[in-house]
Parts: sequence; structure tokens; C-alpha cells
Amino acid sequence: MIAELRAALGDTGVVTDPEVTASYERDMMPLAPYGSPLAVVLPRTVEEVQAVVRACARARVPIVPRGAGSGLSGAANAVDGCVVLVTTKMNAILEIDPDDRLAVVEPGVVNLDLRAAVEKHGLFYPPDPSSYDWCTIGGNLSTNAGGLCCVKYGVTTDSVLGLEVVLADGEVLRTGRRTVKGVAGYDLTKLFVGSEGTLGVITKATLALRPLPQAPATLVAAFSTTAAAGAAVSRVVREGIVPSLMEIMDRSSIEAVERYLRTELGAGPGCAALLICQSDAGAEAGRRELAAIEQVCASSGADLVHSTDDVSEGRDLLTARRAVLPALEVYGAWLTDDVCVPRTRIAELIGGCERISAEVGLRIAVVGHAGDGNMHPTIVYDAASEDEFARARRAFDEILALGLSLGGTVTGEHGVGKIKREWLAREIGPVGLRVHREIKNALDPHHLFNPGSMFDAR
Amino acid sequence: MIAELRAALGDTGVVTDPEVTASYERDMMPLAPYGSPLAVVLPRTVEEVQAVVRACARARVPIVPRGAGSGLSGAANAVDGCVVLVTTKMNAILEIDPDDRLAVVEPGVVNLDLRAAVEKHGLFYPPDPSSYDWCTIGGNLSTNAGGLCCVKYGVTTDSVLGLEVVLADGEVLRTGRRTVKGVAGYDLTKLFVGSEGTLGVITKATLALRPLPQAPATLVAAFSTTAAAGAAVSRVVREGIVPSLMEIMDRSSIEAVERYLRTELGAGPGCAALLICQSDAGAEAGRRELAAIEQVCASSGADLVHSTDDVSEGRDLLTARRAVLPALEVYGAWLTDDVCVPRTRIAELIGGCERISAEVGLRIAVVGHAGDGNMHPTIVYDAASEDEFARARRAFDEILALGLSLGGTVTGEHGVGKIKREWLAREIGPVGLRVHREIKNALDPHHLFNPGSMFDAR
Repeated sequence: MIAELRAALGDTGVVTDPEVTASYERDMMPLAPYGSPLAVVLPRTVEEVQAVVRACARARVPIVPRGAGSGLSGAANAVDGCVVLVTTKMNAILEIDPDDRLAVVEPGVVNLDLRAAVEKHGLFYPPDPSSYDWCTIGGNLSTNAGGLCCVKYGVTTDSVLGLEVVLADGEVLRTGRRTVKGVAGYDLTKLFVGSEGTLGVITKATLALRPLPQAPATLVAAFSTTAAAGAAVSRVVREGIVPSLMEIMDRSSIEAVERYLRTELGAGPGCAALLICQSDAGAEAGRRELAAIEQVCASSGADLVHSTDDVSEGRDLLTARRAVLPALEVYGAWLTDDVCVPRTRIAELIGGCERISAEVGLRIAVVGHAGDGNMHPTIVYDAASEDEFARARRAFDEILALGLSLGGTVTGEHGVGKIKREWLAREIGPVGLRVHREIKNALDPHHLFNPGSMFDAR
Repeated sequence: MIAELRAALGDTGVVTDPEVTASYERDMMPLAPYGSPLAVVLPRTVEEVQAVVRACARARVPIVPRGAGSGLSGAANAVDGCVVLVTTKMNAILEIDPDDRLAVVEPGVVNLDLRAAVEKHGLFYPPDPSSYDWCTIGGNLSTNAGGLCCVKYGVTTDSVLGLEVVLADGEVLRTGRRTVKGVAGYDLTKLFVGSEGTLGVITKATLALRPLPQAPATLVAAFSTTAAAGAAVSRVVREGIVPSLMEIMDRSSIEAVERYLRTELGAGPGCAALLICQSDAGAEAGRRELAAIEQVCASSGADLVHSTDDVSEGRDLLTARRAVLPALEVYGAWLTDDVCVPRTRIAELIGGCERISAEVGLRIAVVGHAGDGNMHPTIVYDAASEDEFARARRAFDEILALGLSLGGTVTGEHGVGKIKREWLAREIGPVGLRVHREIKNALDPHHLFNPGSMFDAR
């Protein structure tokens, strides 16, 4: 089979040196199991992807598709004896059509590169996962990635018009369309988005672009209790305000970032939570939105509210928000969870994380997308200590149980991968799992694609 | 089996009188074939739906689910010997949660009733198909219905968080969630939305609500060529303006409406196309949006542009727009098509419809949702004339061929049903069709649900 792969992709497209293939074994999730691939392939065209899929199908060798490997669920982790199919060489932006506001891209395009390219046309590709400067569109599509934009612009699936996918028998499926509207047939596009490489290999995507938003105005509010911050979020939602960004940082996150960046976020010593909000509505509308949020924060008991339309000041605040994970590395390894709860339950989630932190004796910093209820409680542990790792894992699971008990979901944007299979089963129940299996078995009867990820297909 | 149905649903829940069942044989699409049902059932609970599905599955009797029957594709049309499952008695709005901005409804709720109910909480359910005063949410979900709102707010699928569905073996599947964000597992919600009753019976839906928009400001612009109107639409898109509504009426539509409503739309005698736009951004932002559109229209060669923030004047213009179909009845029966093209191709579509009209010798009025490229060329014919009916049918097909040749899709919001099966096959190709069959056969192996609709499952 390796010879067949080399014949199709050339020597540079097939890697079997274990020292090199090892660097394609896993993504960024420390909890997830991973194995050793037989080979790593780096196809450059859809025809090469077809050749890989057909060769693997004949040899019954599983394929694990992956992009840059920035994932946080182990969905891209190799299994023993598999072929890892890396899409990073398929990185052409094939088309940007400003008149119809769409782009056609290959899966290996880096999110930031696409953002920069369309921005030159006054256009905007919203999905902005925290790894946006190195993650690929293919990985974003496979995990249905989110980011800070979601409160106003949704997750990746909301920006996808159509896909090209190589199926388990090597045939090429084209889903969707170039029109912004269309309901012909089953929505296969949105079935493949978020399917984490278990149904096929995405080789091309037609993406919907938006007008470039106005320069954002920014607001930061400090609260002495998380309950007050949670109440402010609920009231913003209740009053129908839709900011373009609404992030929350708890006390642990603030402390870590202030220490890491050697800066003051102005939260003050009694601060339990910071809200950072932006409006990209522009000019008067933006000022009105922020003024409304300011009033909500004040009447929810904020100790301090500060608004600015200085773009660089806003950028600094977002830099601080995005620095939470590296900042936590000062204390140890981090393990970030991903739960999404109804927006009314955020304060309860944060309170619960404080309890879990005390129980397991580990620091848990809560940071997240308050505007859509998607929280990332991040557990800090000593990677050299088995005991701490075990406690971190326990905390990780307890946070998921808490999220479910609050009416939430076990993943808001990172996906299920190899770490939340049991949690997916718990969330969707036996009938949901059965339907997943029926679809998987219909489209990938020999379990060629990413076996063992998301759910047990058998 | 009928006895079994009566035992489960009571006598009032099962109708076999042919005079009554005849009224449930078909929807509003004159081209679509339909048959005579064995029985019509009107379940009131999910348990009753399960009982119907199980009884039919045992007896291998097909089920055609339907709501009010306002559909325009024959998707709800009976086949001979089937059970028509009508959801109109399941019409409870189970919950409106203003804090988390969602509603939970049964499928038989009328669209307008839901809109009115959530409006009392300052909330907005966007999908507004033209039959919104009598169509049901279940039908909207099954066809992935659209309306005038789509240019800004998308189609039905964009407002759905989760579903409850009775599957082919009578089990209840729950998809999705109550959070605004969530990526756990395959997106089964969006797979069932738009599946036109071929995969299961939707018995409950959790819908995302939006803040009630501001009172709309309205603009109307008259153009002496459709090319100029099309250019204006393209430039609005290109300049990144997102109106909350952007409709187009061609000369035939304007004439029909002016005659029908005995009013002047102010288009003038040389007018080839009217654009009607609204902004619901409110106050200054709304005025700015309309001013930008006004400038685009003027520089695209509009003969007349008129803006108003008088709500009742805006409502009158929309009434005129919505009156196109009844207005055409003065001339004969109407047959409305549904194609969606890239927004840059609207003028070509209208021009093509003029050619087709001349070819078949029938009036074709083009009206549609210009902002998203979704056009409804409507053919007027004499229902008593077989020849005219045949020519209408030919025009219907030629419009679809034209739409596809312009890079469009054969349905923007009405669905495939029983009239566009061959067109769906043509649009999605053999691999697309195969994947549809694989999913259908996996979830409904005995082809219990809506056989012969959308595609041939065999």
C-alpha cells in the first residue's frame, strides 16, 4: 500500500520515517489517546486524496484526516497503523468573489490567511477560534469551530455554502451551492461540517463572507461577584442587545493574565469577574449598544465600567483575554474544557467550577464566550505528577457533568474527538447514538475514516 | 390497521370518509401528482404519533406527514393507500423563554401565532413564508421555509436549536439543544430540517428567537431596465449593505398588482422593475442604511427613489408585494416557480424569463427576494386548457434549467417535493443522489415516510 501511495503522491507526499510521523500523532489535547501511524500523507490535489482513500480502502487501513493539529479534542489523533492524511499542502485560496460575497478555498488554508485575503476586498470571514493564526479551514470545518465572533456571527457551519468531500469509496461528493439560499435535498453540507473527519475528507469549501464590520468600540466591566456578572449577561440577552463580542474572565484568569502580561486590567482587588464586550455596529449604533450594555452592567452591580472607541485599547483588552491560556502555563500544564450552558446559567457554572477546584485541589480558571454561554474552564496541573493529572481529569469530567446538569452541552466548539465519546453518548442518549451509527455505517461502512473518534461506530 | 389507529387516537383522530380525506390529498402546487389516502390521522401527542408510525410500519403502509398544506412542491401530497399524518392538532406553544431567547413549540403551531406570541415578549421569530398567516411551523421545518426575512435572517434552519422526531420504528429522537452554541455530534437537527417528511415526523422544535427589530424604514426604487435593477442589487451586496428586506417586482407583477389593488405603486409607465428595501436597524443606523441604498439605486440609473420611515406606508408597499400571487389570479391560474441564483445574476434570470414567456406564449411575472437571489417567476395559464397547462409546465422547467445555467439552485425555499425530483437529481448529480439514498435507507429502510417525494429512494 505504501508503494501505491508513493506512486500516486510521489516520495515527498508520503512520510514513513517514525521521527517525522511522530509529529503528526496528536493534536493539542493532553488527555486524548493516540497511536503510531503507518504513514503520513500530504496530498496536494483532490485526485491525490482520492488515490489515498482508495488505496487505504482496499488495504482496510484507517485514515485520520487532519489540518494543523490545533484541535483540543484528540479528533485528529492517529490510531496505530493508520494513515494520517494531512491537508496542509492543499492551501490555495481558489477564489474570492466580492460581488457574490463568497470564497472558495482548499482545506489547508490557515484561518488568518483567509481573513487577511478577504479583508483586502472589504470582506469578513467571522469564525475566529483562538488558534486562528495557525489552524486551518479544513480543521475548522471538521470541528465546526467557533471563537469570539459567535455571539453575533455563529460558528463555522453558519459561514459554509458548500463542500467538496472525498467519500469512503474515493468518489467526490459536492454539497451545497454558491447561492446564499437553497434548500434542494438534505443539508449534506451541515452534516459534514462538524463530523470530525468520520464521514469523508473535505477537499474544498465555498464560504459565505460578510461585509467587514465597523471598527469596534469596547467596554470592560468589573464585578465583585460572578453572580452579578452572570446577571449582567442574562440582562443583555434579555434586553435584545447583540454585541459582536462578549467575553468573561474569572478571578483566576485575571490574576494569571495580570502577572503574565505585567499589566493591570483595572479590575481591582475585589474583582471576581470581568466582562469584555464589543460592538461593531459602528458610529452612533455602536455607541448606543455599548451605552445600553454599560447601563445593564451598572444596574447589575458592576464596580467599574469603562467604554472606549479607541481601537488599540480594545485590541489590548482582547490580547489580555486571549492570553489566558499561555498565562496559565506559568503555574503548570493546562487542560481546557469546553461546555456551553444556557446564557442564564453562566454564574452557576462558574460557581460550580470554584467548588470543583476546591474538591480536586487544583486551580481552575474560567474564561469564555459569555454571550453565547460557551465557557472554557481551564484546569492547571503539574504534568509530572500522575496524581495531579488524575485529579485534572476528574475535574474535567465533573465540569462536563455540571454543564449537562445546567441544561448545557458537552462541547460548544472544540468537538467530541477521542476525549468526550462517553459524554456525547450521555448527552444524546441511545436513540441519538443509534442514528449517528446508522449514518456512519451508511456512508463509511468499513469504518475507514477516523475510527474510534466521536463515538463507537459498532 | 385502521382499528389499531382508532384504538390509539380515538374516533376523532382517524378520518376515513373519502369526502373528508380528499381535502388532505394535496398542497398548493398544481403540477404535483397526488393519490387517495387510506386514512387521515390527526394525532395530539407524540405518543399518538408513535402509535401511528408503529401501526403503519407493521402494516407497511406509507405515511405522508403534513401541516396546513400550504406547500408549493407537492411534498405533502398523499400517495394511494397511505396514511396522511396531519400535525395541526399538535398546536401548543409549550414555552417561551425570554431570558434564553427561545421557544419550544409543537409542529402544528401556525407561523403567525408564534410570531404574535413571542412579540409580546419583545422577541422575533424571523422565518416569514408568504403563507405565514396559515402555514405551520412543522411544515416550515420540513421544507426549510424562507420568506422576505432571509436576506438578513436566513431560512428556517437558521432559527432551529433542536428537534424531537419520531423515527421509522416509532422511537423518539431528540436532536440539538437549548444552548445557542453546541457542536456535539453530527448536526442531526439540520439534517431533519428540510428533509420534507422523508426521514421522520417532527413532533417538537426548540427555536431560537431574536430581539424584536426596530420599526422598519422603507425604500422603493423604480428602474426602466431589469439590468439596472439587477446592477443595483449587486452593488448593495458588493458595498456590504445588509437590508432587512430587499424584494423585486418586474413589470408584469407591478401591472397585476396595480390593477388588483386599484392603486398606483408610483412606478410610472416606463418602469421595468421595482426594488423594495427595508432597514430594521432603527434610527440613525436605519437611515444610514437606506441612504446608502438610495445612492446605489440612483447611481445604478433608478428613475425614481423614495424613502420613508412611515411604518404604514412601508406596510402598504409590502402588502402590494405580497399581493402579486392573488393579483395574478385575475388573469388565470398561477404556477409559481422557485429558483435561487447568485445575486449578480438576477437581471439575467429576469431577462431569461421574458424570453421563455415569449416562447411559450404565457404571461410570466417575476417577483422575488432580490437580496438573496431567490426569484419566484410565476406563470399564468388557463387551468381549463390542457395546452396552456402543458406550456406552463414547459416554462416551469425551462426556468429551472435557466436557474441552474446561471449557477443557481432549483429551489431556494419551496423544496423539491413531488415536482422537482428529476431537477434535484440533475442539480446534485449521481454521487449526491447516492448519498441521499444511503441516508434515507439507513434511517427509513422500508421507505415508510413520504415515499416518492424528493428523490427515488431505490
